[in-house]
Amino acid sequence: MENRTPRRPARYDILFEPVRIGPVTAKNRFYQVPHCNGMGRAFPSSMAAMRGVKAEGGWGVVVTEQCDVHHSGNHQREIRIWDEKDLPYLTRATDEIHRHGALAGVELAHNGSYVGNLESRTIPVAPSLKAVRGNLPITARAMDKDDIRAVRRWHRTAALNARRAGFDIVYIYAGHDMTLPVHFLSRRHNHRTDEYGGSLENRARLLRELIEDAKEAVGDTCAVAVRFGVDELMGPRGIGAEDEGRDVVEMLAELPDLWDVNLSNFDNDGQTSRFSDEAFQQNYVKFVKSVTSKPVVGVGRFTSPDTMVSMIKGGTLDLIGAARPSIADPFLPRKIEEGRFDDLRECIGCNICVAGDKASVPMRCTQNPTMGEEWRRGWHPEYIPPKDTDDTVLVVGAGPAGLEAARALGQRGYDVMLADRDRELGGRVTLESRLPGLGEWARVRDWRLTQLRRMPNVQLLPDNEITAEMALEAECSLVAVATGAAWRADGVGRYHSFPMEIPADTPVFTPDDIMAGRLPSGRVVVFDDDHYYMGGVIAERLAEHGCEVTFVTPDSVVSSFTQFTAEQKRVQRRVMEKCAAVHTSKALLRAEPGAARLGCVYTGRETEVAADAFVLVTGMVPRDELYTGLRAYGEDVLGAAGIRRVVRLGDCLGPGIIAAAVHSGHLFARTLDTAITDETPYRRENVELDWDQPLPLSSGGVWAREKRQGHGRQL
Amino acid sequence: MENRTPRRPARYDILFEPVRIGPVTAKNRFYQVPHCNGMGRAFPSSMAAMRGVKAEGGWGVVVTEQCDVHHSGNHQREIRIWDEKDLPYLTRATDEIHRHGALAGVELAHNGSYVGNLESRTIPVAPSLKAVRGNLPITARAMDKDDIRAVRRWHRTAALNARRAGFDIVYIYAGHDMTLPVHFLSRRHNHRTDEYGGSLENRARLLRELIEDAKEAVGDTCAVAVRFGVDELMGPRGIGAEDEGRDVVEMLAELPDLWDVNLSNFDNDGQTSRFSDEAFQQNYVKFVKSVTSKPVVGVGRFTSPDTMVSMIKGGTLDLIGAARPSIADPFLPRKIEEGRFDDLRECIGCNICVAGDKASVPMRCTQNPTMGEEWRRGWHPEYIPPKDTDDTVLVVGAGPAGLEAARALGQRGYDVMLADRDRELGGRVTLESRLPGLGEWARVRDWRLTQLRRMPNVQLLPDNEITAEMALEAECSLVAVATGAAWRADGVGRYHSFPMEIPADTPVFTPDDIMAGRLPSGRVVVFDDDHYYMGGVIAERLAEHGCEVTFVTPDSVVSSFTQFTAEQKRVQRRVMEKCAAVHTSKALLRAEPGAARLGCVYTGRETEVAADAFVLVTGMVPRDELYTGLRAYGEDVLGAAGIRRVVRLGDCLGPGIIAAAVHSGHLFARTLDTAITDETPYRRENVELDWDQPLPLSSGGVWAREKRQGHGRQL
Repeated sequence: MENRTPRRPARYDILFEPVRIGPVTAKNRFYQVPHCNGMGRAFPSSMAAMRGVKAEGGWGVVVTEQCDVHHSGNHQREIRIWDEKDLPYLTRATDEIHRHGALAGVELAHNGSYVGNLESRTIPVAPSLKAVRGNLPITARAMDKDDIRAVRRWHRTAALNARRAGFDIVYIYAGHDMTLPVHFLSRRHNHRTDEYGGSLENRARLLRELIEDAKEAVGDTCAVAVRFGVDELMGPRGIGAEDEGRDVVEMLAELPDLWDVNLSNFDNDGQTSRFSDEAFQQNYVKFVKSVTSKPVVGVGRFTSPDTMVSMIKGGTLDLIGAARPSIADPFLPRKIEEGRFDDLRECIGCNICVAGDKASVPMRCTQNPTMGEEWRRGWHPEYIPPKDTDDTVLVVGAGPAGLEAARALGQRGYDVMLADRDRELGGRVTLESRLPGLGEWARVRDWRLTQLRRMPNVQLLPDNEITAEMALEAECSLVAVATGAAWRADGVGRYHSFPMEIPADTPVFTPDDIMAGRLPSGRVVVFDDDHYYMGGVIAERLAEHGCEVTFVTPDSVVSSFTQFTAEQKRVQRRVMEKCAAVHTSKALLRAEPGAARLGCVYTGRETEVAADAFVLVTGMVPRDELYTGLRAYGEDVLGAAGIRRVVRLGDCLGPGIIAAAVHSGHLFARTLDTAITDETPYRRENVELDWDQPLPLSSGGVWAREKRQGHGRQL
Repeated sequence: MENRTPRRPARYDILFEPVRIGPVTAKNRFYQVPHCNGMGRAFPSSMAAMRGVKAEGGWGVVVTEQCDVHHSGNHQREIRIWDEKDLPYLTRATDEIHRHGALAGVELAHNGSYVGNLESRTIPVAPSLKAVRGNLPITARAMDKDDIRAVRRWHRTAALNARRAGFDIVYIYAGHDMTLPVHFLSRRHNHRTDEYGGSLENRARLLRELIEDAKEAVGDTCAVAVRFGVDELMGPRGIGAEDEGRDVVEMLAELPDLWDVNLSNFDNDGQTSRFSDEAFQQNYVKFVKSVTSKPVVGVGRFTSPDTMVSMIKGGTLDLIGAARPSIADPFLPRKIEEGRFDDLRECIGCNICVAGDKASVPMRCTQNPTMGEEWRRGWHPEYIPPKDTDDTVLVVGAGPAGLEAARALGQRGYDVMLADRDRELGGRVTLESRLPGLGEWARVRDWRLTQLRRMPNVQLLPDNEITAEMALEAECSLVAVATGAAWRADGVGRYHSFPMEIPADTPVFTPDDIMAGRLPSGRVVVFDDDHYYMGGVIAERLAEHGCEVTFVTPDSVVSSFTQFTAEQKRVQRRVMEKCAAVHTSKALLRAEPGAARLGCVYTGRETEVAADAFVLVTGMVPRDELYTGLRAYGEDVLGAAGIRRVVRLGDCLGPGIIAAAVHSGHLFARTLDTAITDETPYRRENVELDWDQPLPLSSGGVWAREKRQGHGRQL
């Protein structure tokens, strides 16, 4: 890569100017802002390797996710810097980042009442008495002056330890309604009457002190950054860019070495493409540069080099912040630097990365199947082992699994035929990207087709329905069947284990019908027993079409899995606004001409609603006729045809999300198999057995059993 | 303890008879069945120590939680036995168990479609195509014969490894609708047409094979147990004790060495005391002994030695199974053995242990504050360090925090005065235990009072409202204020950060009013913004009183936190049955005489319902007047009075659950302080940095960066 002649137009040179940030200098304007990743303290090697790959990809700054400074503000999922035990893996992360010339940042955090401290069992702390977030039956106590001094001390110690671990930039995190300094800032959280409450100056005191403390502790060698949510999108109930959001930046304008500004809370900051476009935060954050001389970084799902340049030239930002775009393409800066614009793998804004994090597993990415696999499987987003067999491969089905399998096999140097029954390639991605709000998802197809069309060793065969006979004659040694899945029309899903009784003349549709343009009319019941996006977007599509839609789901909220993608509230609001009625916690028991019989999932109580037609969004069934047809020939016939293995990929193997299909295709391209191995196919991260670790003095206990008789009083 | 003269009546001797289980023998009939604990693979030292304390407490058998046999059935929260890396901590657990003469069991499991394999990203497997549990957008694929052979191989390898780790009993887990063998058994899951589907004999084939495989592999030295849910409480849709539940036991009767039988799923097996009584499973499992000669263990929240004896003598069980009772009192068998019946600390059936597990943190127990703290803080449930200062302690408030503080301080040998303003001690426990379904919670008070009344160094002072002046004159060097908290009447909680506007003549009640017997009448709106049990039980209480109750909550389900205690479905069903109306996802915006103004949390759309009175179940405020009054004197005055420290405990420090209050009192008794320490006050469990671990052959990747240029093809 390093030897290619740069061929980028000069107008992008501005993105590669160095930027001074306090005592350190970023080599360019590409700035990977802090983001969670589901690795954190549970998968620290995965975390360190992932950050290193970002640096390798050209980001001038790579920052960690939030990093707990103390056990009393304990976000179980993230990294921590409680004491020296955390320094080895943090140092590993900074080593990996520095190896490629990037600056390493760390986002210090104390979560206050955002967390319940379920692990440490410490009563959480807050500026004022406050029930902790969510439904945990825990109330954070109001901090006294000793507590405030302690919080400052913990941040200061953490800043010093962060420097020991090699970090160049130390954050004070006042964003996303998640940390103590922003809780002090917020009128909702802070009802104090002392010098830390009341006026904005008072409410900003802790933030100011934390910045000053950090500068005093490490400011000679480390930059001190502030991450601040300038607008909570709550109107007068919250901080707004027109009022206190601006006032805070004005008040502290020159104090930090860098302003990292965004929307708050995370649901607003990390909006999906279903609800926002590139650069959607611009109007909120653009004031910041006008009130500070310090460098400003902001985000907005930037993937277009032209938009990035306009952010700099237009005076909105100094540094192009990115979380999701750096996940979808860790090499985005390098590719722009080298003018390889066709290679940019753009984030589709689906937030499946967020879902991985929320589920406490290494995050995944729809566009980048190597995300989270850098360390544990040794997968790199740009490099792949060259072919090491003589196989030739027939991939049937050019949906997300087939496209990625063919692309990665092609990259490895294999000869590949990729066939699809449709003239237009892309499979479900093509169909789904036409549904309301999902347009950007077409990037999954577009990037892969661009790559494939450049590969002389890959043959694209659209408009080719491959039969088992044809596959036998294809002279390929591996056949990968990636023919997708079909939505069921019988109601089987999570609620129904057996087909519903549906009278023959009942107008029943599936998402496949809707995507194919076969739409019902009149009063339509959408039964969503799938719980991700499909039920909601189908309802939206039908409402736009003029149907009177009744949305029915056995779950307690609309599209419940979208809680994991941080968009459930927006989804439910939209569905409630578009539909005539929304019935949650109800199952569709029977679909009949003219009526839907609903049953309450709690009481069994039945009700009826009028229905001219039904759309069943329940389960999916693999379209695996080709696979079963081929397998039916038996090993001998297949062997005689030169076929040594037939596999299923993606939805044809196990119907799921697009990210899983892409991952399935990629995994096959790397291993040439899909069988579950006996050995764990990735490196495990294990908790150390540290049985005789000394007890902390403040534990209140005794450990050694020998001592119990002497030191213990029996009940 | 060992030297005390046994004084148990002979009728309990039967509980201490040894029981032969295949090739091993349990020393008595006390059998700690498998149970999750939130420690698992993330906190393995905590897990090992906790199991050891159970063995020390006299349980004849101590079994682990479920233990994953393979990455393709990956329950992230539990222990695993994927390969040799797991043997060190498992061996530590068996060492701890054996040290005290107990048998160690391990519950091998493959979770099939119960899990989404979010970590490994392996497509889950199932007898037939099936969407995985919950709302994960993942479909388990139907297993072929190779898959079935692999599952058998993984179980066999795991059994062999389990023996290497020192286990005496190896389980095949076919319970709780959670594992492959029970999925094969179930008609809901298994729609196969081969020899593993159709007839019950076919559906039981995998279970039979797994038992046979384990016996063949380790049966010469290890017992092979089966855990089986005989009834799913689903009527004809599920397995029932009258039909296939019985048929399975009959069919495999003599094959395993032990039957561990219960109700399925976990919500049915682990019912709270709000919905079930001791021995509630008896009628479902009692048939088992009549169809097998093998020993039978069952559960039913057994804490009464007389009930236990009747289970044995009545022919229901051979071994007294316990999960929760062994958590509340790990020394239950020892205490019965020694006739120390007053010392039995009975489980209250609140399931806060389950909540800890579901939240992926070491579980807690309302009755036993040392649970989960055995290793990390060196806390033992029976022994405590003797006093090591000259302090005398005044504890004000005899609720759960004050009772436990006084008791544990008394156990340490401190002179303690425990005062309460009420004649009847117990604080909130006394009041709440009178609410519908919460009667057993009084055990929190009763056990502590029994202990306290035997302590000559503890003085109980009921009916004594302690003022700051009185505390100054009490001649105590430590004053612990455990005066609880009051429910707010202003609406502030999670939804409202500021007091609601409530006209002065609006009849507003709080849970404190209801518990004090001040009840509204007519149409009552209960606004639950607390989300644990209180809103639901208040609604139930008012409905019983004859009110027409409208239940309103901004959450999407009733009492949402009870999802963590595995009772939410039962709670919501009951509340829906008792109330005139239930409005979820709605906030009470305004309370006015005659009407409640509700707002949809998604759309903001407002509606109105008639209301004669309101009960606000929102937030709590500490009753800390005594604390602030004492602190107002200043250090000098307090010092002159001999007071060196004034602290708050329990709800007075941070309003929460009873388990937190008990823990707070216990922590203070051990440390004589409540301040948050800079150092982490417990031993941490850390993920090992194992950066250069070799890559598995099946990873499909390359790791060493040096090799990338030679071995990798660039995009």
